Parts: sequence; structure tokens; C-alpha cells
Amino acid sequence: MPRESEIISRLRRAAGAGEGVLVGIGDDAAVIKGQGAKDSIFCCDLLIEGVHFRREWTAPGLLGQKALAVSLSDIAAMGGVPKYAMISIAIPGSCSPQFIDELFEGLFELAGASGVSIIGGDTSSSRDSLFIDVSVVGECESGAAVTRRGAKIGDTVYVSGSLGASAVGLSLLENGCRLDASQSRDARSTAVLKHLSPKPQLKLGGALGERRLASAMIDISDGLSTDLWHILDESDCGAVIDADAIPIADCVRSIASSSPAIDPLRLAVDGGEEYELLFTSATENHQQVLALSDSLGVAITAIGNIVSDKRLQLKLQGVLEALKPLGYQHII
Amino acid sequence: MPRESEIISRLRRAAGAGEGVLVGIGDDAAVIKGQGAKDSIFCCDLLIEGVHFRREWTAPGLLGQKALAVSLSDIAAMGGVPKYAMISIAIPGSCSPQFIDELFEGLFELAGASGVSIIGGDTSSSRDSLFIDVSVVGECESGAAVTRRGAKIGDTVYVSGSLGASAVGLSLLENGCRLDASQSRDARSTAVLKHLSPKPQLKLGGALGERRLASAMIDISDGLSTDLWHILDESDCGAVIDADAIPIADCVRSIASSSPAIDPLRLAVDGGEEYELLFTSATENHQQVLALSDSLGVAITAIGNIVSDKRLQLKLQGVLEALKPLGYQHII
Repeated sequence: MPRESEIISRLRRAAGAGEGVLVGIGDDAAVIKGQGAKDSIFCCDLLIEGVHFRREWTAPGLLGQKALAVSLSDIAAMGGVPKYAMISIAIPGSCSPQFIDELFEGLFELAGASGVSIIGGDTSSSRDSLFIDVSVVGECESGAAVTRRGAKIGDTVYVSGSLGASAVGLSLLENGCRLDASQSRDARSTAVLKHLSPKPQLKLGGALGERRLASAMIDISDGLSTDLWHILDESDCGAVIDADAIPIADCVRSIASSSPAIDPLRLAVDGGEEYELLFTSATENHQQVLALSDSLGVAITAIGNIVSDKRLQLKLQGVLEALKPLGYQHII
Repeated sequence: MPRESEIISRLRRAAGAGEGVLVGIGDDAAVIKGQGAKDSIFCCDLLIEGVHFRREWTAPGLLGQKALAVSLSDIAAMGGVPKYAMISIAIPGSCSPQFIDELFEGLFELAGASGVSIIGGDTSSSRDSLFIDVSVVGECESGAAVTRRGAKIGDTVYVSGSLGASAVGLSLLENGCRLDASQSRDARSTAVLKHLSPKPQLKLGGALGERRLASAMIDISDGLSTDLWHILDESDCGAVIDADAIPIADCVRSIASSSPAIDPLRLAVDGGEEYELLFTSATENHQQVLALSDSLGVAITAIGNIVSDKRLQLKLQGVLEALKPLGYQHII
């Protein structure tokens, strides 16, 4: 069974370079040279029942939002602004019309809030699973797209928001915890909601791109360790991450305080589906990055540095240890 | 269970108009105003196992080609030229790596032959069925996109190629007929191949758009009767089609000659998945349309006229009868 990374490598070799293709297969999104002052950004993301979600775990509106959110996050990770989306959906007979209506309502709500127009798509029946593929078209200033390959030795590594909650939320769902509309926002429901309803960092991604503050960027879909590896691999460098600096979500610390089996740091380092932005920036940009964090009201934390030694290391209690990409690996 | 047309109507109402959206939900593809001399065209098409294909009926390479071909056909139907594609694929464990390799080989082969660069996509596992969604980005001269809504009273109705073979091919497959590599190109294998490996009319679509010869256009995916209805509905008019003029595929006539149960005209009128172009054009363009047919080596046949009476009628042996849209209706 091939891994997703093997399929992507094969496709990348086969695809070659096309006319006007600034960024092709293998980044968060593709970038095409525009005719004017803007370049176009394209991406698509699948949500497959039984692989990415279970219908019984989520409200249909949240599922619709997530289907769009994960693609919007890819545009943000290129430093772009999303503009248009197409929705392909294959619906099994077991989905009621109401389920589909609510799914689209959630999706349209996020589209509206994100300034995204739904311009098309395709619908079909499906024998068994619900299948959603959302394609998004975005744009950025000409030449301003942020890829995974621009990290430079000495750059600071930053992450937005806080980490670990989505992995805890997934674990809670797997163990029978469900969202309850009347539930207060306790630590458990906060974690579950982070998993079921991630909020892509659209303003931050767009601003980092527009101000050309990020040298490399990716969204955390597979886990900090794996996604940082993608940047290091493409940028041909290494990194040292300070364990104490990694922003662990409050709800993760809270749940861990009564569940000794939970290691908050491990979840923050390896947990996937966070849809936070992980980026690198030259040290002289530090004050601008902090100012951007203030003006957008988005936490941004410096967690380490890019180094020439092509390893990824975690500094834990003063000792350096190898940090392996233990985040989610897509096994096909 | 909602029909696809009901879902699309709901989406169309909910989507509204977005900035720069020249054509939104409800046509073969969406059109976005470009910054320069070109507009951008976007579409996506699903191929779902058990709904659109069966793995045991086709070679994987042909399946990959068809997955791309049906989206390319949508770009052609807008009078555009395809440029880039993204492939989303969810693969069940029962698909071997070789199957996937051959599927992508077929897809890349058609992409190369069509001048299309594969720029991205997404891959996932799937619990059961193979799902493929191909998004294509095309372009046309600014304002030259051909929609379904421009048919004018008096226009001639044209169709490319010949009709009926794909429906016969599907029926043969359902009855156990399989493609055999050593088989000569007899009528049966021609029909099966038309179903499994449709050839989108890319040159014709692009030329009709560039020369602004078509007032309305659609590709025949649901059947001539249904797809012509789409044009009439959007253009607020009717049509009279001459049964004797409809180009029935030779292989269909040949198979029908020994199978009295087969009605070649009915198959040509209602058979779907032909991926031929159905378009309307002002009568004064007739010589230019014929010249285009000659220069491209693509058969183009005038089959009727647009009329003010908002019905679709078939003239059969001198008598007008109502032609109902009996082509494929997507039941979700």
C-alpha cells in the first residue's frame, strides 16, 4: 500500500513544469502566474467518511464548515487570500435531505464570513460513504506566494494559536464524547470543537503574504513535527525547537491534569488537524511579527530556529533530542 | 431523495453573485473575469465507483483518461481552452499500486496531449469505493465564454460527431461485453470504447469560443434531449429538431441491424455520456461553421432550429412530437 507521500513524489516527477506554473504539486497549493498584479492560487482537499470524519461524531453544519475550512487553510498557508470555491459531493442514500441542507448551510456560512464565493461543483450519489472535495481559488500579490522551500539558516520558527487540542478532541470523540448544544465551553468540548470546527488563520496568512514577512509557511494538518519536516526537507536545512516555547492549548493542559496518561507536549508536537500556521521569518522581522499578532489578535509564538545541521531537534530540559515526524502519515 | 437539479437550484439561490463572477453555479463551468485579456474558467467532475463506472469494466488507464476527459469537455463547452488540472482521489485498499499507477499514466497521457498541466490535488484512502474528482482551470478571451443562455430565435442547432454509441457501449458492458486488446475495431468494441474513453471536443470548443460562433453551448453528458432542454430553459425559448438529421453513430446502426430491440434514434436522442458538443449559432454563420468542421476534421451537423414556442419538439416523418428530456437524471 503506497503512502500519500510516495504517490505525490511520483506525480511530481510525472507532472514536470507547465507554462505559468510558479508552484506545482507538493506544496499546500499551486500557484499560477497571473496576467496582472496578482498570481492565482489553487488547492483542493478531500473529506472522506470513515477516513477524515464519522457522520455520528459531528453536526452536518460543522462538517460543511470543516470541508471548506481545510482548503481555505491551504490558501492561507501560501500567504494568499481565498476568493472562490467549488464543491464536489457524493451523497449516499443514508444521508437525509436535511443533513445535506445543513451541511451546505454551514459551508455557505463560512464562505460568506471568509469573503469566498461558491461558483460551482459537482454532485453525485455514492454507494456507501459521503465524499466531499472542496477546490478553492485564491490570489496573492505577484511573486508573493509563500512556499515550503524558503526557510533560511538563522530564521525564527513561529506557530500561530496553540496546539494539541485537535488530537485530544479526536481521542475524546473516539472514546464516545459528543458535542452537546447545551454544554458549557469546558475543556473537553473546547477540544472536540477544535477538531470538528477548525478555524483557518486566513487573516494571518494573507497578512504574512502581503507584507512578505514569512520565508516559508505550511499549515499544521499532519502535526508540527511532520509539517516542520516538510519545510526543512524542501528548504534543505534543519531546526532546533524549544520544547518550553511550544504553545500548548489550555484545554489540553486542563484535561491532562486529571489524565496522567496524556502527555501535552507530545500531543502538541505530533497532533494533526490543527490548521494553525507554521512559518519561518528572518530575525530582523521579529518586531513586525509581534505587531501583526497584536493587530490581528492572533497568538504567534517563536518556538525555535532554522539551522544548517539538517536535523530536526527538540531542546527539552536543556538537552537536544531528535524530533521524528510522528504526526499523521497518510497510508493509502 | 433530492435530484441533482434540485440541489443545484438550492445552491444557485444560496450562492448569489460574487465579485468578478461572470458565470456561477448552473452552467458547464464557472467563469471569472480576468485582470487582462483573458477570463478564467473553472469546473470539476466526479467519477464515483458503482455510480459512474465499475472497475471490472475498464482498464485503469482508460479510467484515468475519462476522469480528466469529462472535465475537459466542460471547458470545451464554454468555448474555452483547458490549462491546468487538480486530481483528488480516494483509494480503497482493494486497488493495487499498479492499478493506481496505470490510472495516473492514462490521465497524464491525456493531459499531455491536451496541453494541460497537472498542478496539484489531494489523495486519501477510502473505506470502499474509488472516488475521483478532477478540477480543471481553463481560459478564454475576455467576454467570449459561451453559456447555456444565449440561444436566439432562428438560430440553428448543431451537434458534433455522432450519437448513441456511448449508451450502446454501456448496455453492452452491463450485459457482459468487455474490451479485448486483441479485438478488431468491430461495432461492439467501438461502442464500448466510446463509453469508456470519450474524446472531448477540445479543438472545436476552443475554436467556437475564439471565433464567437456559438450563441449557446453545452456538452452532451446527460443526453441530447436533456442537454438541449438545459439550453432552452436557460435561454427562454424552444426548438424543433429534425429526427432525420440527427447523426446516429455507424456502430449503433450496425448493432441495431441485428438487434431489433435497439432503436438507434431513441439512443441518439436520450443516450448520455457522449461528450459531443451541442451548440446554437445564428444562420448567417452556417458557412463558417461548415468551414470549421472541414478545417478541424470534426463532423458538425445542423439538426434543427431555435423557435419562440417554448417547447422541444422532434419532427419525425413529417409530424411534430414533444421531445421529453429522457436523458440521464442524477438521482441522489
